[in-house]
Amino acid sequence: MRILAFGDSFVIGAGDPDHLGWIGRALAGRREITLYNLGVRRETSADIAARWRAEALPRMVDHEPMRIVFSFGCNDCNLEDGALRVPTAKSLLNARAMLTEAARLAPVLMVGPPPTAEPDVVVRAEELNEHLKVLAARLQAPFIDVFRPLAADGLWVREAADWDGAHPGAAGYQRMADLVAAHPAWRTFTGVD
Amino acid sequence: MRILAFGDSFVIGAGDPDHLGWIGRALAGRREITLYNLGVRRETSADIAARWRAEALPRMVDHEPMRIVFSFGCNDCNLEDGALRVPTAKSLLNARAMLTEAARLAPVLMVGPPPTAEPDVVVRAEELNEHLKVLAARLQAPFIDVFRPLAADGLWVREAADWDGAHPGAAGYQRMADLVAAHPAWRTFTGVD
Repeated sequence: MRILAFGDSFVIGAGDPDHLGWIGRALAGRREITLYNLGVRRETSADIAARWRAEALPRMVDHEPMRIVFSFGCNDCNLEDGALRVPTAKSLLNARAMLTEAARLAPVLMVGPPPTAEPDVVVRAEELNEHLKVLAARLQAPFIDVFRPLAADGLWVREAADWDGAHPGAAGYQRMADLVAAHPAWRTFTGVD
Repeated sequence: MRILAFGDSFVIGAGDPDHLGWIGRALAGRREITLYNLGVRRETSADIAARWRAEALPRMVDHEPMRIVFSFGCNDCNLEDGALRVPTAKSLLNARAMLTEAARLAPVLMVGPPPTAEPDVVVRAEELNEHLKVLAARLQAPFIDVFRPLAADGLWVREAADWDGAHPGAAGYQRMADLVAAHPAWRTFTGVD
């Protein structure tokens, strides 16, 4: 199986000393899976929407099962010149377009955004997470919500605050990986169950 | 620092149960480095030449040091319908174009191809490795030769033979990572020395 993961700095695992991120950690030991980690730092849903297809095509093959993962949202919720980088309505349009179009190529799954240590951003990210969850349900795309468990647990936000305000270390990424890997939707999606 | 790594299945780490590949392992503990691993399975120098620039652009930033790594060659040496997938002269033209053009964007380093367990391919890959080394020297691009140490050691080829004939497991990738990480060119390139 080959998994293409499109998203932001959390997908690529910025700040992870092991260069795995949550998705590399969630696939630990799964030697038969090739992971194409296509997270890019600072990218919003609009940035990912603009490039995902061009990067997916050279990585798609017919002779092995393919899967596509999306995970984004936090960067949409950051302010730039006093305005949201991407307004919520537009984030949802971007997400709908990506989930719908990618589903024509391969089974698709979305992982919601994690919390951050920045007080204003985290409120908006939690709202966007809820909207994305509703959208995914409407599109019948599996969605894994990690926001509240990571926020409640505190480890993620604490590690992020100790580093650059946004990105945790090995333990935070591992915590998120554990949430994802244990989720029934992930297990079905990656062929464990 | 951000490192963009373009290459083939060895770069992406196909068959590595830890989803690190040699380059993820060579950067272990370097939390300040974001690794964009843009290896793609089965790709020849021609395939990589066709996409590397489009994938580099969204990942380049002005505010952090950038580095570009290339590593390819084995797939060029495979036969398809009785002919080399990429003739040697063309492989070298592709390599020259990539090394030259990428050097305008960021410091560039090339890692030569590893050996394989396939008898005919390995002979051609060793020849191509030598040609690439000469080319890189002419272009004053640092080049790390891993071919002979990995072939002589036997672990890489043995693990590859036990799996799919081409890709080793964790120990083989770690061996290659150790060779790369200890190389003076790598240490300078990644800011250790």
